[in-house]
Amino acid sequence: MNKEMILVRIYLSEADQGKRHNLLDEVMELLHDKHRVHGVTVFRGSTGFGAKGVVHSADLLRLAQRLPLVVEFFDEPPVVKEALKALDSLLPSGHIISWPVSCRILEK
Amino acid sequence: MNKEMILVRIYLSEADQGKRHNLLDEVMELLHDKHRVHGVTVFRGSTGFGAKGVVHSADLLRLAQRLPLVVEFFDEPPVVKEALKALDSLLPSGHIISWPVSCRILEK
Amino acid sequence: MNKEMILVRIYLSEADQGKRHNLLDEVMELLHDKHRVHGVTVFRGSTGFGAKGVVHSADLLRLAQRLPLVVEFFDEPPVVKEALKALDSLLPSGHIISWPVSCRILEK
Repeated sequence: MNKEMILVRIYLSEADQGKRHNLLDEVMELLHDKHRVHGVTVFRGSTGFGAKGVVHSADLLRLAQRLPLVVEFFDEPPVVKEALKALDSLLPSGHIISWPVSCRILEK
Repeated sequence: MNKEMILVRIYLSEADQGKRHNLLDEVMELLHDKHRVHGVTVFRGSTGFGAKGVVHSADLLRLAQRLPLVVEFFDEPPVVKEALKALDSLLPSGHIISWPVSCRILEK
Repeated sequence: MNKEMILVRIYLSEADQGKRHNLLDEVMELLHDKHRVHGVTVFRGSTGFGAKGVVHSADLLRLAQRLPLVVEFFDEPPVVKEALKALDSLLPSGHIISWPVSCRILEK
């Protein structure tokens, strides 16, 4: 059986600061403590460039901690909708994408 | 020309044990030796939390090898369908998601 | 508000050579300098196997630099269409997949 869910991906940088802490910590706190979404995983990119066209590579910028971070989670549409609303206050426009996925559920 | 395919993503942890070996090894063996699916890639997450809400981060748990692993592959729908059936016996419910993708095929 | 975009994923290996440089460098140059696409991120896989069924793992092949690389970007459909046409001359058939995503745009 498949359950329809939404996968959300959030683009950050290691250097991003939130209102009180590091932005990654604030995003994780929100997803984990408040919305308890499913399947949260953080991936570290090895190179990237953002809206300003500046390349951040592992070789040059490891010490500066500007590497791209991608936070992902997936859950049922109503849970995702609430989490996205809460994320809007933390993240700049254009940094969140999402798409529908099928989650495989085994019949017992 | 585009060919319609399915991308499958499997969520594991470095600590997961299968029936005989490490679970990642069993999944790779199944995908590689038995089903020969296309484009298998393993990504290592740097932080994650699972169903029990326990955070696993690279800093704290590197030695404990509990970091999240994501195994992905993509192939044509009939191949994916057979591989998913075989994966069901290895993985807990809710750890596999999939979505349709277009694969770019160049005309010769 | 959501804007419909396309996410593109390109599968390379660290060892791939382009016409003049390392293939990753050529792909990044094309995406960055010529097409200025949005949200480019490079992910390094820790294991993978390609069309020939050879497994490349971090343990065995770190020195040989044959690990899988995934380059991703997302942008509006017309921008993606032009970038894909340009990528065709750099990459073998079957190494690019894409799928539609919704990008969250905040109303000011």
